[in-house]
Amino acid sequence: MKLLIVGSVAVDSVETPFGKMNRALGGSATYASIAASYFTSPGIVAVVGYDFERRHINLLKRKGVDLEGLQIDRSEKTFYWSGYYEGDMNAAHTRATDLNVFESFNPAIPKSYRDTPFILLENIHPALQLDVLSQVRKPKLVMCDTMNYWINSEPDLLEKVFRKVDVICINEDEARLFCNTPSLPAAAGKLLKLGPKYIIIKKGIHGVVLFGKKSFFALPSMPLLKVKDPTGAGDTFAGGTIGYIARSSRLSEDLLRRALVAGTVMASYCVEDFSCRRTARLKPEEISGRAKQLREYARVPAFRM
Amino acid sequence: MKLLIVGSVAVDSVETPFGKMNRALGGSATYASIAASYFTSPGIVAVVGYDFERRHINLLKRKGVDLEGLQIDRSEKTFYWSGYYEGDMNAAHTRATDLNVFESFNPAIPKSYRDTPFILLENIHPALQLDVLSQVRKPKLVMCDTMNYWINSEPDLLEKVFRKVDVICINEDEARLFCNTPSLPAAAGKLLKLGPKYIIIKKGIHGVVLFGKKSFFALPSMPLLKVKDPTGAGDTFAGGTIGYIARSSRLSEDLLRRALVAGTVMASYCVEDFSCRRTARLKPEEISGRAKQLREYARVPAFRM
Repeated sequence: MKLLIVGSVAVDSVETPFGKMNRALGGSATYASIAASYFTSPGIVAVVGYDFERRHINLLKRKGVDLEGLQIDRSEKTFYWSGYYEGDMNAAHTRATDLNVFESFNPAIPKSYRDTPFILLENIHPALQLDVLSQVRKPKLVMCDTMNYWINSEPDLLEKVFRKVDVICINEDEARLFCNTPSLPAAAGKLLKLGPKYIIIKKGIHGVVLFGKKSFFALPSMPLLKVKDPTGAGDTFAGGTIGYIARSSRLSEDLLRRALVAGTVMASYCVEDFSCRRTARLKPEEISGRAKQLREYARVPAFRM
Repeated sequence: MKLLIVGSVAVDSVETPFGKMNRALGGSATYASIAASYFTSPGIVAVVGYDFERRHINLLKRKGVDLEGLQIDRSEKTFYWSGYYEGDMNAAHTRATDLNVFESFNPAIPKSYRDTPFILLENIHPALQLDVLSQVRKPKLVMCDTMNYWINSEPDLLEKVFRKVDVICINEDEARLFCNTPSLPAAAGKLLKLGPKYIIIKKGIHGVVLFGKKSFFALPSMPLLKVKDPTGAGDTFAGGTIGYIARSSRLSEDLLRRALVAGTVMASYCVEDFSCRRTARLKPEEISGRAKQLREYARVPAFRM
């Protein structure tokens, strides 16, 4: 196993202007591990309840996701989220969030996972993110995500997480909120000062930007006419990105750029259908085909004054 | 003269979190012509009043802008706009809009302008945009801009304009509003069906996207730590873009991509100071230097699966 992903495995009921799906497979670790599975060997640490369906387990297994770290809590139900999107599907509206097993989630890292070289800390309580880091031995690279909720409620703990990771991967609004500035370059500068080598800022349909100590990279998203359900796009992006990074022995700027292409392409497939329906059934040629397309979309010819 | 720009020449008083400037040179034709002057020979059709200062005229002349089409109305004052920006400076708040001479603006195209090969129709009443087109002879390329106000009040006339131009250059919100869809690819598809060869959609800090019948290009904006005043950025972008296009005899996809780089670089300089202070004083090396930087920022290495 090359990549450890800690996050949620959930059951989602989602409605969008393009349809709905009841009790589908969801959760940040789910989306991320399926995306990563095309590039590396991921394993997850998460918890599900007694109602978690066998078919979901089978899907993850089929994608080569190591499930030794998936705890099954027989006393409770699986984390359940129900919500809907309207109009441009920019914002998710929550109908129900039943934490269930997730409320007492304690990410115990199996012994066999403790030397995993790459780690993705998905959006969970920053205290748990720190707890994970205390259980593992010298990973090569740690990437973390978070959300507005933790920025508002646990900014100090979150800062501790940021000080311990190599890459922060967050939304543009989260970056602005945490850094208290409307400017993304200013926010990235502040975050880099905490220690991480790179800041990845996700901007949805506007693509993604990467800030290093002395570098900058901007990648557009795929222009899509058919977007059915944006749920899981960010987690799919993060999983695809770190999954691609995990293939290589040396972290270079160009590797990161390629990894962001991988993440962007995986996210573009994610939103074309509900749940993981599209990302679970991709052929490698579909990924490399869209990556090639994206490169052409972003190609800037040499400038002549 | 290679490029005719029809729009406003104004006097602006602008306040931002980073300072203020009273009665500075403004207006869409001003910003666009100064930006274009680095790449081609522009001339403007616009109107000013009796109070328009000699130093503004001199600045435009110094930049090589042909002013035969600049009418001076001795009975009225110049178009005056006063406004301020707050926070992330995303939205302009208007304190005063005194149309003055602009209220009865009638874009009479001088005879010597009527064979100009490239035309930029800046944001004015669509009836006036159509009037300009009826006065000129077979231009090689016409690009137009507009604003929410005309989309809401004159959608049918505006559609007539769109049917007659080669390139539409508008903001993302305007594209969504006119086409009644949240999706930019869908909006661009609708606009292309009206006849234009290309749709340029401006997204501010998120850069710009170009839709052709069978092509797509996305270019990021320059990441700037120092943004003083966003006024005129869109017009500067449009002027830089069509100014660069006007240098060439053949419209190709790569020429357009380079032109968008030119526009983006000019806009990035525009926002670094008030009014045209920065864009009026650029060295060619500053433009090509930033263009080279932007190309590196957007460089996508070949993907390997």
